[in-house]
Amino acid sequence: MRTHLFGGVVVTGDADHTVYPSGDVVLEDDRISYIGTRYPGDCDRRVDASGFLVMPGLVNAHTHSPMTLFRGLADDVDFQVFLHERVWPREVVLTPEDVYAGSVLSGIEMLKSGVTSYVDMYFWEEELARAAIDVGIRAMITPGILDAPSWEPILGTWERRTQVVLDFCRRWNGVEGRIHTGFGPHAPYTLSLAALAEIANVASSSGFPLHIHLVETELERNEFNRRGLGTTAQALERIGFFDVPVLAAHSIWVDDHDLDIYRRKGVSVAHCPISNAKLGAGIAPAARILARGIEVGLGTDGAATNNNMDLWEEMKFAPLLAKAVSLDPTSLPAREVLRMATSLGAQASRLEGVGELTVGYKADLVMVSLSDTTAVPTFHHQSYIDLLVYSMDRSLVHSVWVNGRQVVDAGEVLTVDEEAARAAAQRSADAVSQRIAA
Amino acid sequence: MRTHLFGGVVVTGDADHTVYPSGDVVLEDDRISYIGTRYPGDCDRRVDASGFLVMPGLVNAHTHSPMTLFRGLADDVDFQVFLHERVWPREVVLTPEDVYAGSVLSGIEMLKSGVTSYVDMYFWEEELARAAIDVGIRAMITPGILDAPSWEPILGTWERRTQVVLDFCRRWNGVEGRIHTGFGPHAPYTLSLAALAEIANVASSSGFPLHIHLVETELERNEFNRRGLGTTAQALERIGFFDVPVLAAHSIWVDDHDLDIYRRKGVSVAHCPISNAKLGAGIAPAARILARGIEVGLGTDGAATNNNMDLWEEMKFAPLLAKAVSLDPTSLPAREVLRMATSLGAQASRLEGVGELTVGYKADLVMVSLSDTTAVPTFHHQSYIDLLVYSMDRSLVHSVWVNGRQVVDAGEVLTVDEEAARAAAQRSADAVSQRIAA
Repeated sequence: MRTHLFGGVVVTGDADHTVYPSGDVVLEDDRISYIGTRYPGDCDRRVDASGFLVMPGLVNAHTHSPMTLFRGLADDVDFQVFLHERVWPREVVLTPEDVYAGSVLSGIEMLKSGVTSYVDMYFWEEELARAAIDVGIRAMITPGILDAPSWEPILGTWERRTQVVLDFCRRWNGVEGRIHTGFGPHAPYTLSLAALAEIANVASSSGFPLHIHLVETELERNEFNRRGLGTTAQALERIGFFDVPVLAAHSIWVDDHDLDIYRRKGVSVAHCPISNAKLGAGIAPAARILARGIEVGLGTDGAATNNNMDLWEEMKFAPLLAKAVSLDPTSLPAREVLRMATSLGAQASRLEGVGELTVGYKADLVMVSLSDTTAVPTFHHQSYIDLLVYSMDRSLVHSVWVNGRQVVDAGEVLTVDEEAARAAAQRSADAVSQRIAA
Repeated sequence: MRTHLFGGVVVTGDADHTVYPSGDVVLEDDRISYIGTRYPGDCDRRVDASGFLVMPGLVNAHTHSPMTLFRGLADDVDFQVFLHERVWPREVVLTPEDVYAGSVLSGIEMLKSGVTSYVDMYFWEEELARAAIDVGIRAMITPGILDAPSWEPILGTWERRTQVVLDFCRRWNGVEGRIHTGFGPHAPYTLSLAALAEIANVASSSGFPLHIHLVETELERNEFNRRGLGTTAQALERIGFFDVPVLAAHSIWVDDHDLDIYRRKGVSVAHCPISNAKLGAGIAPAARILARGIEVGLGTDGAATNNNMDLWEEMKFAPLLAKAVSLDPTSLPAREVLRMATSLGAQASRLEGVGELTVGYKADLVMVSLSDTTAVPTFHHQSYIDLLVYSMDRSLVHSVWVNGRQVVDAGEVLTVDEEAARAAAQRSADAVSQRIAA
């Protein structure tokens, strides 16, 4: 199956920020087989992309997909109230059906907004994988592991849980060319250093990456210091945790020495500026992290702290925040931000061959309408990148392909029934509220 | 003409944050004549609002509407480069036709995103007024006045300009019940204190309000200090500038003593967090200003520093920024933000009887679709306010009424031809570029 998109403004997302004002993109099965301006071959389907921007699908480098069920449940409250009073009591009564319903709702929201890949950390991981398969999206699924008494009835001990996750990773990795797997040790404040070392050991010997929350709060940093462990990064390096590929979400309270460690060990970062701001957790020094050559992606985090799955908002908020706190309008320019949301985000998420419109890469791409006031005027073809980051938004996403298959057309998801999915999510949210009230 | 909207979730935007889970709103000519749950009367038109949220139209408290022509022209550059190299050289070659084209583009963008009123500061003010009339939106037009050599060929001396603006204010105030007028002395760095005093004097004796940029940059603050004038607010109070109703845009570099002056003199503020961030100008202490009882609205500023006219983004960005810098997730809660974008914004903008769904108020209102993943789930009827601010966005705006007249239906503007307006704006932007290249 060969599909030829012609006549669109093609924003490749590559390192040279290549833009073709009227380009050809050819998808052959699950891969991109041609990018340029004079496609000579034939095809099975021709798609007129004139009046559209054609770009790589966005990569959401950190989320907890089922948390759409808790959207709007914990706004304008303290982080500890959020976690211990609002979210955790509900999470421990979730059924697999609830997790599936929340994850499908997330998946629809992401696809319709042009996100084609995401990194997920949650439990009931079989449901996470099924939701991604059914929605037609690409997911890096890293089942959560933690050592906390309230979670043991659900997840078992962390040792047992690690084996379950290993089994999941092996069974699901590569399924339909869209499921990728890794381990999700939750955080250094929910697992001991000994446990983290052992999980890294299992990941290392089985060849799967790690995804963890690191220094999201000043409290975590201070607590490590108080215990005489140095910074979180120092402690994790010491136990060999960084000898495995690690995606570190948040990384707000890092210092220059920590970033030396990240750089040396190839630790990548999922920057989640909206969630971090909304929880009052702080502001990660994204521009400084990027300047070190560390791979940084953008993440929405879960919908309870955002409150949506819209990576366009992260694309706008990240540079604004960087400029506002540095008083430097040149900080984190649009071109870098677009890379964070696409190719750099894919690299940070350990998704190989994803995030660029480049021959041989996965055919994950988006057609975005230019028939909107926010896309006017343009001055030269590079200015589309500025419009994309600062002016346009998810509402202009028209068509989406994942792994070569069209999954959104004219703004509608083709794979699942959205209205039914919304109703199922509302039912699950209500049921959870009733369960904890009982 | 009486229109009855029934069955919608009615978010009134009043001081009590009243929400009717299934309410009636009745528009009679240009006013709201009923709000409640059991409308007994008859009507000329019934609109089924079930599945929609009905809310007051948003108020954009500070913009320069024609600057959509410069959207994307000056991204990721220094403020002085922005002003002196990119924007001012283009502004002085604008024709009235260009200003009209840019302002119409803005007006369409605002209406479609649910903004029903805006405060505008620019020149070629007759065109600003005509654009607002043609688009069908409500505008407080405050023609800009400044004392700068490069502007004198266009605007004349500031004394002459002040008389022209006075004449404009008198002729246009109240036209079609949608045009409101005031004076727009540009800033304390483009007008002398003597000129500011004289403009305030003219405004005072003619009964029109003032709209000015105040302490947008640290440079302005430092310059006033260096000249021994105290802070900008102190200097303006001394010359009687605040004896007239004043809307002070930005107000970033204010201290507690300045806020005492604002409070005492009834100065209101247009908070423009996105523009301020994008220019690296700083972060206005919005929560602290509000806590003083000062009226604060939200503004997009011009599209060259935003880069759009979407007040939903300001509604989300303002509280996120407040929480991020204070490390306090309870700062600037959603309810206060919604008030800033509606009723409080209207008061700050000196638009009486605007910004609330309250009997006797102007019939400026919006129907927002709840048929979207971002509106799911809800837990109780107040949670719609959280969803509005943190999760939903402009793409869900379905229908808009201004002054009792429907101007948007199913997301399409009914008053002007959007496609023609986009083409006209692109032509003007191109023509301006050619003029300055010549």
